[in-house]
Amino acid sequence: MAVFTPVSRDELSLWLKNFSIGTLTGFEGIATGIENTNYFVATSHARYVLTLFEKLTRAELPFYLNLMSHLARHGIPCPAPIADHGNRLLGELNGKPAAIVTCLSGRSELSPTPEHCAALGAMLAEMHLAGQSFGMRLENPRGPKWWRATAPQVMPFLDAARRKLLGDELAFQASHRLDALPRGVVHADLFRDNVLFDQGRIGGFIDFYFAGSDVLLFDLAVCVNDWCVDAAGGFDAARAGAFLAAYHAVRALTENERAAWSVLLRAAALRFWLSRLFDLHVPRRGEIVHPHDPEHFRRILELRTGDPAPPWV
Amino acid sequence: MAVFTPVSRDELSLWLKNFSIGTLTGFEGIATGIENTNYFVATSHARYVLTLFEKLTRAELPFYLNLMSHLARHGIPCPAPIADHGNRLLGELNGKPAAIVTCLSGRSELSPTPEHCAALGAMLAEMHLAGQSFGMRLENPRGPKWWRATAPQVMPFLDAARRKLLGDELAFQASHRLDALPRGVVHADLFRDNVLFDQGRIGGFIDFYFAGSDVLLFDLAVCVNDWCVDAAGGFDAARAGAFLAAYHAVRALTENERAAWSVLLRAAALRFWLSRLFDLHVPRRGEIVHPHDPEHFRRILELRTGDPAPPWV
Repeated sequence: MAVFTPVSRDELSLWLKNFSIGTLTGFEGIATGIENTNYFVATSHARYVLTLFEKLTRAELPFYLNLMSHLARHGIPCPAPIADHGNRLLGELNGKPAAIVTCLSGRSELSPTPEHCAALGAMLAEMHLAGQSFGMRLENPRGPKWWRATAPQVMPFLDAARRKLLGDELAFQASHRLDALPRGVVHADLFRDNVLFDQGRIGGFIDFYFAGSDVLLFDLAVCVNDWCVDAAGGFDAARAGAFLAAYHAVRALTENERAAWSVLLRAAALRFWLSRLFDLHVPRRGEIVHPHDPEHFRRILELRTGDPAPPWV
Repeated sequence: MAVFTPVSRDELSLWLKNFSIGTLTGFEGIATGIENTNYFVATSHARYVLTLFEKLTRAELPFYLNLMSHLARHGIPCPAPIADHGNRLLGELNGKPAAIVTCLSGRSELSPTPEHCAALGAMLAEMHLAGQSFGMRLENPRGPKWWRATAPQVMPFLDAARRKLLGDELAFQASHRLDALPRGVVHADLFRDNVLFDQGRIGGFIDFYFAGSDVLLFDLAVCVNDWCVDAAGGFDAARAGAFLAAYHAVRALTENERAAWSVLLRAAALRFWLSRLFDLHVPRRGEIVHPHDPEHFRRILELRTGDPAPPWV
């Protein structure tokens, strides 16, 4: 399901001559991608990941590629796009926009401890600081505008209780202005499978193709809702505390952020409930063969609406 | 002899807050530097090398730092300067211009085989190709202008035979125009101790602070004179052949380059004979406690002037 655009050895060998990364020694398709075609590529220099972009366009891609390049240059472990001999990060292969990026070390930690969450929090804060000097902007593609456009498309598939929950939450979110919160580059999809750990350290943040410009607190909410919860979606105080304290030690959280914390935790739950509803009920051809269960984030959203005091530093 | 400017733990910890590379976990001075103060720095993210520049100025350093950043972005394994929160590669620490760069893996190979020389040749060619899109220029600081300025300073220390050799060689070099040769960024000091090998691959080219804009063939001559010779300085045909063939496979050498090969091999020998004479006879305060023996490159220069047909592809 992942290799939408096949690439032959000869095609790849020829394409690599645009770069200074040695000669091809091996490559294989990556099965887990759902948005793009990805290959692991080994050369006489090192290992890389080749991505052929199936949906993102030549207008959107410079933001993502330059962002990763910017963050890598600042020491954030993330895939670094390799520039070609014309100094371009974005090329074309078999008719698709294509880029080749460094391959990071480590693997996902699907049962994180408070120590993992602390490492995550510190690195997220470092990424937010490094992102402040990035010169490009792209509105979070799954932000409030997208919620408002998407909700009517999934409403017909929901029962009365879920329609009410969704409608109430959109109204709740619309009633809160977040203008006073620190903004910048957010990853916006920093789930456990998008972070690599290597010997207890963060080996890499990966999959930046939902990144955008938004309130920084949104990233923290996405992380806490995924990394710092029990099986039912309730907060794990030890993990949430470790995550927030480590973040705060690098970038001090503000009073305005504390005041908005509940709103953002709900916004992050809403965003993924909505996208999962959309993927389930409004499938597009050739995409997402095994959609995630939307109910997980519906339950988290319900829990968050009832939390009087979510964990904080 | 290497740490000219001491840095305390507190000073370094504070300085690192300008970057997104985590918190200091350890550091130690590097004893081998002769031009700058260098420290290994370990943080919660990774290992780095901190350099306080003792001689190079704020006017010269952007060329070097941007060059390393450019090459790293193109996939050449070289120290990548870390940008600070203001997006700058060059900062200041304890009154000195300072930069912190990634720490590369591997170690020098002081007894290279033809395989090592082939890996070196291929990577050097990749570096030359990647350098073609670098936008800054800095004349090779140890090029012909420097030879002409330096020779009169060392002449008084030489016997008649050496004075004649030096004078004749300067005249020989001046009689050859190299305008037809491919030019670009050269490392210009790619001796065995400036290349790291990691499991048989090039782990890094280091110490770019003699790099500049020059004929590319100069880099090949420096390499062959160091990597592909026997103890007496004569060519090792197997190593020279492996080096040149691997280079040629990535960037095809031209007929003009073949015609100039002898001249460049002599130029590369001259350059290091001269600098070693200068370091021995015109010592500057606080620098180079153990100068290299100039005679090694005097002998190589003499050998090269007698070579009718140096190794070529």
